[in-house]
Amino acid sequence: MMSSLEELGKRAAEAKYALQVLSSEQKNAALEAVAGAFLARKQEMLSANEKDLKAGEENGMHPGLLDRLRLTEDRIQAMADGLIEITELPDPLGEVLECFDRPNGLHISKLRVPFGVIGIIYESRPNVTADAFGLCFKTGNAVILKGGKDALYSNIAISRIIRETLAEEGITEDAVLLITDTDRQVTNDFMKLNRYVDVLIPRGGAGLIRAVVENSTIPVIETGTGNCHIYIDEDADIEKAVPIVLNAKTQRIGVCNSCESLVIHEKIADKVLPALGEALREKKVEMRGDEKVRALLPDCLAATEEDYGTEYLDYIISMKTVASTEEAIAHINRYTTRHSDAIITENKDHARLFLQCVDSACVYVNASTRFTDGFEFGFGAEIGISTQKLHARGPMGLKELTTYKYTITGNGQIRP
Amino acid sequence: MMSSLEELGKRAAEAKYALQVLSSEQKNAALEAVAGAFLARKQEMLSANEKDLKAGEENGMHPGLLDRLRLTEDRIQAMADGLIEITELPDPLGEVLECFDRPNGLHISKLRVPFGVIGIIYESRPNVTADAFGLCFKTGNAVILKGGKDALYSNIAISRIIRETLAEEGITEDAVLLITDTDRQVTNDFMKLNRYVDVLIPRGGAGLIRAVVENSTIPVIETGTGNCHIYIDEDADIEKAVPIVLNAKTQRIGVCNSCESLVIHEKIADKVLPALGEALREKKVEMRGDEKVRALLPDCLAATEEDYGTEYLDYIISMKTVASTEEAIAHINRYTTRHSDAIITENKDHARLFLQCVDSACVYVNASTRFTDGFEFGFGAEIGISTQKLHARGPMGLKELTTYKYTITGNGQIRP
Repeated sequence: MMSSLEELGKRAAEAKYALQVLSSEQKNAALEAVAGAFLARKQEMLSANEKDLKAGEENGMHPGLLDRLRLTEDRIQAMADGLIEITELPDPLGEVLECFDRPNGLHISKLRVPFGVIGIIYESRPNVTADAFGLCFKTGNAVILKGGKDALYSNIAISRIIRETLAEEGITEDAVLLITDTDRQVTNDFMKLNRYVDVLIPRGGAGLIRAVVENSTIPVIETGTGNCHIYIDEDADIEKAVPIVLNAKTQRIGVCNSCESLVIHEKIADKVLPALGEALREKKVEMRGDEKVRALLPDCLAATEEDYGTEYLDYIISMKTVASTEEAIAHINRYTTRHSDAIITENKDHARLFLQCVDSACVYVNASTRFTDGFEFGFGAEIGISTQKLHARGPMGLKELTTYKYTITGNGQIRP
Repeated sequence: MMSSLEELGKRAAEAKYALQVLSSEQKNAALEAVAGAFLARKQEMLSANEKDLKAGEENGMHPGLLDRLRLTEDRIQAMADGLIEITELPDPLGEVLECFDRPNGLHISKLRVPFGVIGIIYESRPNVTADAFGLCFKTGNAVILKGGKDALYSNIAISRIIRETLAEEGITEDAVLLITDTDRQVTNDFMKLNRYVDVLIPRGGAGLIRAVVENSTIPVIETGTGNCHIYIDEDADIEKAVPIVLNAKTQRIGVCNSCESLVIHEKIADKVLPALGEALREKKVEMRGDEKVRALLPDCLAATEEDYGTEYLDYIISMKTVASTEEAIAHINRYTTRHSDAIITENKDHARLFLQCVDSACVYVNASTRFTDGFEFGFGAEIGISTQKLHARGPMGLKELTTYKYTITGNGQIRP
């Protein structure tokens, strides 16, 4: 049984000093050991997970959620592989971001350093427990985890295996601390633990993220919901437009970088919509559009204002016609969650305007929004996709889990 | 009379698109014009300020606060000079922070862009109105200002002059918007205007900053309180230690980078404290120390736990002896506000340990903490000193008022 929140905070704050001085080799060796322990002790995880699954079934948990909760041998292998992938990424710590001398002889260095203690609040996906540990550990941070209560037994087993393995490696087991109290008040108190926690990252659906943004007094990195748009400009190449929309909408439905809303220039609507409608129909995507869209696609339902603001995460797409790139940009900026939005066009001026004015983390020309992802960007594993503007935007890899400090070295300088 | 918060938010969000495309030349010309208008219309500002001062005097405002509220010809000149200085700083916008190609041919650029809309909440110092506008405008941001109610007439006059001058320059006057409703509820609502405001920066004392951190749902950059420490190590050069402490404590009393607390290795206490005590006594600094300090300085009062956690901003200093560098670091990390802390030592290992382990934005070796300042770092004008770890730490100049976006250009790429 874990101790009180205050106690956990203190232990994490203590652990961070030991963690920040570990060498890359020590950290990689520990990550490999934990990956090995996941495989060697998989039965322990599967049994714990079985308890969670049974309780979930008894409580009538939605099949989709049960699937996310479920651990299998393959998924445990994937968790282990994930840690090994993290060992292969360069260690961002120790980087000198800038250094300069002042006229008075002061030597100033801006150094990349760990945050210290990262808090992560997430839902009932036990693999997040392993991923979050791996990314925070590699960046020299202690992490305090609060997972969904439906995954409690699984998370206890995973964090126990991590902690015991770290201890065997001679590393403080408080690198990872799990909040096991499932009282909602404890989660609320966790969001106000500024004294010990440097940054809080929610991972999950819109409701969780909103709750954290509204209640946390700790600086939050808001990750993820994506009401992503694709705008088919009047100068779009239809041969590109149809496959991109189809890919962004249907290649994977339940993810934040999938396309939820289509914006179409009215001059190209009659050329692109029939082919696009057919392709979407084939994939069983429900279409909801404005009157001009519906005039061209008789099976398209009427879209409401609410549709334009909805991240469906489902086989549904909203469609809206506009009279100009400017109108498309205004519509997108009104409804986007600032994740990823794309323009399909061969017109360089329209592309430039769109790239400049769409106020999102990732703005695309002639490509699918599905590329907003740490691996696709070449960053490797990611902790999430930031949709706020403070600190980090878009895919957040290892560097985004660090901050910097200034060190200033002198020989007796005083301020005149 | 300004309109509702919602209306102000909308106008700022509209203005940001016009502001982000201004050239450096347009922005600098506008800043020069505003500086000129400040001087040409100083009587208008002085009359408005007179009303605020009169009300302040009638309400028994503290002389120190009245002084901060007061505008004089010299101070108006300084406000104008401040804007001219901002024109001389390089424009951070348009910088390509990184760009790279992916194996699938996607071209990804990470571009420095404005936040969009910055909110600033501050106390009754009318010059902040001009400074905040200048820094936000140069970085392509719209700014919504909420100043202290005691400076309302002054702020209305200053923002009117800015807005009218911008309009004459053909630039949207909504680059600066002032909240004139002094109802506290309006300030609270402002802190939750996430829909329009990208980042909120409080400028003022500990109480204001705490209120913003606790109530804002907008991402906050926490600026400023400084419970700054100087640690005199056993291997300190006393010839450096005494002048540095004296400078950091007394060169300017009421500022965040002044020294509030001294930590002294017990092995050097009897060598350094008599000289230091004499120097502090001469400057009329009240000393509050532990028993070992008091044994060497009979006029030193007894320090309490509260003393170690207090930012005095006054002629008072707390003093604590320790038995090692590690103990000094632990004490400092417990009480520091993570602003600026210094070690005085000739021992390179102690210096290295201190630089690595003290968890503050600016960590010094053998120099006064008073150098934590945008001008002293060579950044030019600053919006504040960040004491949190998200986004920016230490002095925040123009670059720190920007974020980035990714632009991704392809030729039809879809995700396999």
